[in-house]
Parts: sequence; C-alpha cells; structure tokens
Amino acid sequence: MVAMPRWDPNAEDRLREAALELFLEHGYENVTVAEITERAGLTRRSFSRYFADKRDVLFAESERLPAALAHSVRGADETLTPFEALLTALLDVTRGLADEPSLAAQRRAIVHASPELQERGRTKLAAATDAVAEALRDRGTAEFEATLLAEVGVAIFRTAFERWTDQPDQVGLPARIREAATDLATSLGTVDFATLPHP
Amino acid sequence: MVAMPRWDPNAEDRLREAALELFLEHGYENVTVAEITERAGLTRRSFSRYFADKRDVLFAESERLPAALAHSVRGADETLTPFEALLTALLDVTRGLADEPSLAAQRRAIVHASPELQERGRTKLAAATDAVAEALRDRGTAEFEATLLAEVGVAIFRTAFERWTDQPDQVGLPARIREAATDLATSLGTVDFATLPHP
Repeated sequence: MVAMPRWDPNAEDRLREAALELFLEHGYENVTVAEITERAGLTRRSFSRYFADKRDVLFAESERLPAALAHSVRGADETLTPFEALLTALLDVTRGLADEPSLAAQRRAIVHASPELQERGRTKLAAATDAVAEALRDRGTAEFEATLLAEVGVAIFRTAFERWTDQPDQVGLPARIREAATDLATSLGTVDFATLPHP
Repeated sequence: MVAMPRWDPNAEDRLREAALELFLEHGYENVTVAEITERAGLTRRSFSRYFADKRDVLFAESERLPAALAHSVRGADETLTPFEALLTALLDVTRGLADEPSLAAQRRAIVHASPELQERGRTKLAAATDAVAEALRDRGTAEFEATLLAEVGVAIFRTAFERWTDQPDQVGLPARIREAATDLATSLGTVDFATLPHP
C-alpha cells in the first residue's frame, strides 16, 4: 500500500474523479463508498469530510448553486432590470464553476441513467429557482414575475449546461448561457401575439 | 346504504372531489382508497376504472399533458414560428382542461405540502418538456433550441397555473398563459446584452 499524506488539498477532486470513474464502469447502484475511497487512495474519514453519501458526490456542486445565484442577484447593480440581474448572476456564477466539462459530461450521463438521480437533480434545480425568485422579489420584482423569470433563468442554465457538456471543446459555460439567452430573446421577438388564439 | 347506479357518468369527478376533500381534511398520507370510495359512494372497482392508486387522483390530469401538448405543437399551422406553435399549443390545451380553479388550487395545496408529491409533479412536468421538445424537433427546430423553448414553455405553464389558482376569480388559465408569455417577452426585450459581463 502506498503511503498517503494525512492532508491532501486535492482530496475532494480525487474522490469525485474516482467516484465518477467507478459509477461509469459499474453503474451508480453497484458502487460503494469503500470502493470510491480505495480507488482514490483515501480513507472513509476523508470522504466524510467532503460528502454526506455517494449521491452527494454528484450533487455537491449544485448544492452551492441556489445560494450563489441568489447572492449574485441581490448584489447585481441596482440599475439593471430584473432579467439583466438574473443573467448577470448566471454568468458570474458559471464563470466560477470548478467542473471540467468532461467531468460534468460524465456526471450528466450517470444522472441521466437513473430516474432517482434525475429526480434529485430536478429537486436541486427547483431549489435554485426558489432562491432566485426570492432574491428577485427582494430587489422589488413582483411576485409572479419573479417566479417566471427565475424558472426561465434556470431553464437557460439547464439548456446551456447540456450544450456545454455535449460540445465541451467549443466554448465555456458562460458563453453558452449568453447564447441561450440571446436565442430565447430572438425566439420571443418573433411572436406575433395578435395572431395567437384568444382565450 | 343508498343504492347507486351501476354506471355513473360523473364517477371520476366524484372520486376526485372526495379524494381532495379527504386529503385536505386528514392529510394525504392518512387517507386510504377505501375512505375515498366510501365518501364518493362508489366501489373500489369504480375507483380502479379511473385511477391506478391514490396518488394518481392528483396527477391523472397532468398524465395527459405531455401527449396533448406534443399533439398540438405538431398540428400547429406550419407558418408559425416555433415559439408561436408552442404558445398556440399551451393555449389550446389549457382551454380544454377540465379542472375548476378551486379544485386545482386544492390539489396544488396538497402537492405543495409533500416533498414526495412535489417530486412527482416535477417528474410529470419534465415529461411534458421532453414531449414538447421532441414535437418541436419534428417541426424542424434545432436540437438545443427545441429543448430551451420547451423548458421555457413549461415554465410559462407552471407560473400561469400558479397565478390562476391563486387568483381564480379573475381570468381563465389560457389568459394567464398569454399574460405570462407577454410579460416574459417584455422582460427579455429590456435586456441590453452589450452591457452584460462578457465570458
């Protein structure tokens, strides 16, 4: 057995990489925490320092998303419109995301293969939506408009994230966010509300 | 015991109303199918004709949503832009929704009180998103644009639905859909993309 340093600044990353490898090799359900720590050359105690359980390895990053987005929305320049504040927050927060696109793509594939993990992912994004809506309301955005914009902001995030992990070599996640928002503005700009069915 | 007709055209509605009443009185977890059928004055066999289980009483309506939306998107006039086709589908489908707003509001309150039911609701809406995205792709919308528009369409539906059940006496659900879409177009129209942080 190789001697490991007692404190390893890369322990969290190594555990995450080992877990993703094992999940992809054997299927998420069939991997134990013991196998993850063994592959990473670390102890159960190191694992517990960073993650609650093996599911948490996949979602620790998105755990931070609601608070980070809400903080950034609240801190955005007060001259910005609500949607500008929201997009600024999405751009700021995704610039700071630690994930490599290839790791993010692996994680996405693992989550996609399990209905339970997909539900978990949706719950996380719903928490982000709620946090953003509350932050927008704190800026003075009306109740339902805040909900709508927060939902749409998270839809932009989710789609941009998919595209980024699908085509990781082209541009970064913030550029994908900007692209999705621009596409959406263009699509909505084409709508002729007068020709739609009237309620 | 009161004699009931063997075939009752309102059986489904009566079962749904009885279930909602009982869920609100005693909490969703504490209600059995036997209590629902007793309150409705119907048999277990009638219940099974309409619903798989008690959870299904809450979601039978949204079960139909993905196919109905996809069908309407595919059938929309081919001169419509993708977003126009999507909004037309949302307006058409919500015009046909059987629910009374007061029943919808009750259902929303019950679902809101239970994390398990909330997850279930999110899963249903995710199915609607996937179905709409596929229908848009069949109309020739590009891969990621279809995903984005479908997500945003469902965000509009969800917000409109909340507002409609919150203020049921004002206007119908289709009018709330139109209002949310208009609000979103206005919000996005205010965005000055040149001033946003550059990736």
